[in-house]
Amino acid sequence: MNEQVDKAQILVASNRGPVSFSIGADGSLGHRRGGGGLVSGLSSAAEGTDTLWVCAALSDADRKAAAESGDGRIDRVADLGGMRVTMLDIPQDVFDNAYTGIANSTLWFVQHMLYDTPNAPDFGAGFRTRWADYRAYNAAFAEALLTGSDEGAKVAVQDYHLALLPRMLRGRRPDLRIAHFSHTPWAPPEYFRLLPADIRRELLEGMLGADHLGFLSPRWADAFLRCCAEFLRATVDPVRRTVEYGGRIIGVEVHALGADADGLRERAAAGDVAERAAALRERVGDRRLIVRVDRTELSKNIVRGLEAYRELLRSRPEWRGEVTHLAFAYPSRTDVPEYLAYTERVRRLAEEITEEFATPEWTPLVLEVNDDFPRSLAAYRMADVLLVNPIRDGMNLVAKEGPVLSERGCALVLSTEAGAADELGADALLVNPYDVVETAEALHTALSMPAEERSARCERLVEAATALPPARWFRRQLDALR
Amino acid sequence: MNEQVDKAQILVASNRGPVSFSIGADGSLGHRRGGGGLVSGLSSAAEGTDTLWVCAALSDADRKAAAESGDGRIDRVADLGGMRVTMLDIPQDVFDNAYTGIANSTLWFVQHMLYDTPNAPDFGAGFRTRWADYRAYNAAFAEALLTGSDEGAKVAVQDYHLALLPRMLRGRRPDLRIAHFSHTPWAPPEYFRLLPADIRRELLEGMLGADHLGFLSPRWADAFLRCCAEFLRATVDPVRRTVEYGGRIIGVEVHALGADADGLRERAAAGDVAERAAALRERVGDRRLIVRVDRTELSKNIVRGLEAYRELLRSRPEWRGEVTHLAFAYPSRTDVPEYLAYTERVRRLAEEITEEFATPEWTPLVLEVNDDFPRSLAAYRMADVLLVNPIRDGMNLVAKEGPVLSERGCALVLSTEAGAADELGADALLVNPYDVVETAEALHTALSMPAEERSARCERLVEAATALPPARWFRRQLDALR
Repeated sequence: MNEQVDKAQILVASNRGPVSFSIGADGSLGHRRGGGGLVSGLSSAAEGTDTLWVCAALSDADRKAAAESGDGRIDRVADLGGMRVTMLDIPQDVFDNAYTGIANSTLWFVQHMLYDTPNAPDFGAGFRTRWADYRAYNAAFAEALLTGSDEGAKVAVQDYHLALLPRMLRGRRPDLRIAHFSHTPWAPPEYFRLLPADIRRELLEGMLGADHLGFLSPRWADAFLRCCAEFLRATVDPVRRTVEYGGRIIGVEVHALGADADGLRERAAAGDVAERAAALRERVGDRRLIVRVDRTELSKNIVRGLEAYRELLRSRPEWRGEVTHLAFAYPSRTDVPEYLAYTERVRRLAEEITEEFATPEWTPLVLEVNDDFPRSLAAYRMADVLLVNPIRDGMNLVAKEGPVLSERGCALVLSTEAGAADELGADALLVNPYDVVETAEALHTALSMPAEERSARCERLVEAATALPPARWFRRQLDALR
Repeated sequence: MNEQVDKAQILVASNRGPVSFSIGADGSLGHRRGGGGLVSGLSSAAEGTDTLWVCAALSDADRKAAAESGDGRIDRVADLGGMRVTMLDIPQDVFDNAYTGIANSTLWFVQHMLYDTPNAPDFGAGFRTRWADYRAYNAAFAEALLTGSDEGAKVAVQDYHLALLPRMLRGRRPDLRIAHFSHTPWAPPEYFRLLPADIRRELLEGMLGADHLGFLSPRWADAFLRCCAEFLRATVDPVRRTVEYGGRIIGVEVHALGADADGLRERAAAGDVAERAAALRERVGDRRLIVRVDRTELSKNIVRGLEAYRELLRSRPEWRGEVTHLAFAYPSRTDVPEYLAYTERVRRLAEEITEEFATPEWTPLVLEVNDDFPRSLAAYRMADVLLVNPIRDGMNLVAKEGPVLSERGCALVLSTEAGAADELGADALLVNPYDVVETAEALHTALSMPAEERSARCERLVEAATALPPARWFRRQLDALR
């Protein structure tokens, strides 16, 4: 079937939708459209086709909007530019158990290999209750999609929150063409096996309900295939990347999501970004800048990043007074104790570094733990060195977006454990994220790199980083369903 | 060459030797010969051949003995029944860095996948110092072995403490025939890669200096092969289990160490064991007994074992008053803070369980955190159910020794993550060690099992557990060198 001719309806399912609501002082609902690859991808793919996006209400305001619409179709109560969106008002306790209790704790921790294994996880009776709610959360999406879908519609299911959804859909509507995309890494069987046996099976079978499974890196795709072979005894072709299971053949592909260069550059040209850049420049003077921007997330490895910076200042004293590290670590999952403790460690270490090195003339480190998107973009523009050192990361878009905006041709110090290392490895300075000494040396190499080499590398980084922009990335998921 | 004819000298290298010294009240040296597979294996293999065992001094008394002998040949200062033993007096700081700082922290944690990855490990400058001492520790063994070895001697190197030794030996004495045996699991490449790149390489190349590499389970052997393929780009034959590297072909084999039934039964028939059995019986009455015996080691999973027992008493109240859990968790690595904290967790949880369930007539749980070998043997004899639930374990000999001594035909609840599950899986009740609910259910199944089934299973467990006793296990390592 030709791309232009296949005008089948397109459905998207994701936890976070393309819009979020807020309640004004007068009690009225306002809304803000989000960015991100899916939004631009869907808009561009959807021209001339019918679309429906199903997502969860994530706040009280979202819930209010969903309630006001009657059936959750929030495009009836807010102008979404023609996009049809169903926002699911899932009962708060079910949502919390599914989202926080399963997806962001168990599944996130497994795929990122974050567990302190002697002490966690611990699959007791409480886990089973939460798992039932994870199932109910997936079922709520299934219900909404089935209600809104035409015969032969294409469904693009997003991420680990909705791993059970493909099978639920297929069971009731074999006519649907279903893709699932994983934005996280995938754990090797030796780690995935810490999940209870029936849960492992339910997750894998849930995803294999799709026709097509997408991953961000060959490493994650291959680990998924190994899990299917080991835990389902499925027939796996590791070269063509297919899984034969339940009488069907499921295709597994890598779609390495790239940066949206045009959208980024447009946003970074706005006045608020220039303001932030001026304020930062005032603060740090004309010193070299090492920049990092992350959520304060256990997998992002901010502590070891700060340790590496400290090691740089200790082992290469020539950089004292010459460089400033901007570390923007905006808050994340503040309802999880491990994350609060981690944020505390980050703050303490930053204080220690300041105490050890700061002089009246020189601020070695600026740590900001609040969220300021235009400030992040300003930092990308100004960076001499971008530090991206996660212990494990599906892709890491900071590594791709930073070079795009860099005005000075930044050097990129990048963890081998980020999916982005697949495309950027040739021109980044790759580091083992656990190796603080190696990371410090890479920072030194980055700072010492001749300007021509740095900008030549940065140009190639940008080329690789933008090879598959969001719209084409999303298109690929749909094309795989033809 | 025929087994009877190959009378080449046999050298053994292991951190812990076959004897340990103590200093009496009058300052004189006493010594005690240890047990274990290597001792009986070597004695039986060595008949009529020259042998030398090289080990490290582990205590002040050991150091004193080594010093008194002049060159470390402690068989000259103590009657070791004809065994020649060199005990190395390695400087305390070098030993501590190698043994505690590298082997028992870094290497043990990697192979058992024990790290709390967001927070540890952290390869800073201190790690490099410790690594240099690990190298020096291995070199000290190399020196002693080279001094004492004949042309064409066979060398059986034991475990992760001595991973660099095979290559050190081969570099200077290509005539030697070298085997290395790993008593731990081996981590998959996705986890092994958290080691710094040069360290990964040095470890793998160090071991590949051997002619023959032995592992306790096909799982660990295969993970090692995958690491060689990924980190050395070595040519690996996963079916024949060979590694081609540096112009040589190294054989990898599984030797699944079994229990020494005769030795165990003899020891368990002694008076002190009978005494302990009587004392235990007095304490618990004629109730059913669930027994566990472990070092208090992060990988042994004692906390989740206790949680499973609590879950059993909660979800199956019919067992209250009818069963007692004997948990013997003798101290281990008390110099490592994580281990102290873990022991504290074990104690607290035991108190909670006692508080929740104990009655004036019934002690639901007996936790002992001191070491009493005859008491452990007594518990094996009396066990109705043996609980062995490590999160990861090279073999776990408790799972093999318990059934051998069991007088009541015990049921075995066994973690899938123990190497022993390979041989005992058919007749044990296998559990996911992270799944407390499944473990509780397995305990219930074990307690409910008809006596005939239980004893029939136990007989088959004993058969499987004793299939490769220590002497034959050791013989196999040597035979692989012909």
